[in-house]
Amino acid sequence: MTDTIEFLHHPTSQPCRAVHQLMLENDIPFEERIINLMDGENETAEFKARYNPTGQVPIIVDGDFTLWESSAIGFYLSERFAIPGNWLGRTMQERALIQQYTHFHSTMLRRGAGAFFYTRFAECIWGPRDYSAEIAMGRYMLAQSMPILETWLGRHDHLCGDAISFADLLAFHEFVSHEAGAIIPASEWAKFPRIRAWFDRLAERPHAKAVSGMIMMVGAMRQAGEAIPMTRKSSLAKGTQIRPDEGH
Amino acid sequence: MTDTIEFLHHPTSQPCRAVHQLMLENDIPFEERIINLMDGENETAEFKARYNPTGQVPIIVDGDFTLWESSAIGFYLSERFAIPGNWLGRTMQERALIQQYTHFHSTMLRRGAGAFFYTRFAECIWGPRDYSAEIAMGRYMLAQSMPILETWLGRHDHLCGDAISFADLLAFHEFVSHEAGAIIPASEWAKFPRIRAWFDRLAERPHAKAVSGMIMMVGAMRQAGEAIPMTRKSSLAKGTQIRPDEGH
Repeated sequence: MTDTIEFLHHPTSQPCRAVHQLMLENDIPFEERIINLMDGENETAEFKARYNPTGQVPIIVDGDFTLWESSAIGFYLSERFAIPGNWLGRTMQERALIQQYTHFHSTMLRRGAGAFFYTRFAECIWGPRDYSAEIAMGRYMLAQSMPILETWLGRHDHLCGDAISFADLLAFHEFVSHEAGAIIPASEWAKFPRIRAWFDRLAERPHAKAVSGMIMMVGAMRQAGEAIPMTRKSSLAKGTQIRPDEGH
Repeated sequence: MTDTIEFLHHPTSQPCRAVHQLMLENDIPFEERIINLMDGENETAEFKARYNPTGQVPIIVDGDFTLWESSAIGFYLSERFAIPGNWLGRTMQERALIQQYTHFHSTMLRRGAGAFFYTRFAECIWGPRDYSAEIAMGRYMLAQSMPILETWLGRHDHLCGDAISFADLLAFHEFVSHEAGAIIPASEWAKFPRIRAWFDRLAERPHAKAVSGMIMMVGAMRQAGEAIPMTRKSSLAKGTQIRPDEGH
């Protein structure tokens, strides 16, 4: 079995960027395959049957083993390539706290992505409609999550301890999207100085910059009012939809 | 350090029951402390500062180590007590697939709990209002999740392979609540014969019955129209709220 991982992803996806950065930070050998979320490649029955029934990315293929869900991928790569323990935990307790974060993330901070997605992307898919309920829900989840992160960052330099971990990458890339979309005003940032300092520190990492270029560009285009043709649906910012027809 | 785990939980919570059953199945020594979600014990600032900033259960305390998030607890207990590998994975790949399931669970099947919660419990907290949007969203997430489970159960006897794992417990206890609330009609069950057979098989396990008694009783009370005084908020069926004021 070759050691090269096939990495299916899209750079506008926050969890994809977290996994991408984890691999770059640790010199994990991979070949990337960009999945065109914009034209619905991931929505096809073939894609779902072969890779992931939810249609979401990131996905890795390691020989005959296919895996999706960014956090599962993180822990798997940690074992598979014996990457330094700070990333996914050196001890039973560190691993548990990173796990705890990943689930907090899925149901709290990650749902804040709705603020970005429905402000900047939704009308590219469904046209100009009233997305205020979705945006309000995203902002609410962000507002619920940020004070908790601020508290944690008062105890340690990073979310799960003093060393950087995969938890930081997951959280960081949520805020990268919010930055790309100018979602969090300066007045709001002022309430969270530790998150701000942590974010700015992480943003300096070369691999953070490398994987964030595309979303910063797309964010700038959207802020300028440029349309981006998109048809994606199931790959919607995960868990942010609040209506059965996925928003509309 | 004693080997006895302090287990903070409530038997109406699906993730609590999954952890509870995991501990019973594996003779893990624990002392339980029921957290009264009904009167908001978990909503206090003291509780959140001491145990979990989200106010949610289950939580375990192992000496001076506190951990929340059911999936993190499952993996931690697996390492801490070296429980048989079928539960949290014997190999790197098995662990990864169970991890994958736990995150699918958080954002898909778990959100289906809204169908149960808003049909049977919401009016006990906020009074009789229109919960149709929340119920529709819960039913939608359930409808999105069940065909995927049905497919998986066509490949193996359990969700992540032939042996029972923690993934099965997480999923099973979602359906226990739906059964308690009579949420899924027979006509709907008829479309998912493998899930039905899997559920019935799991329901026969003595520890499944032991941890499900309370919710079955509460479900019967609610179906009969009896009120149950409740004030809980943050412990809402996780991720099922669709409005910033948590539903209303």
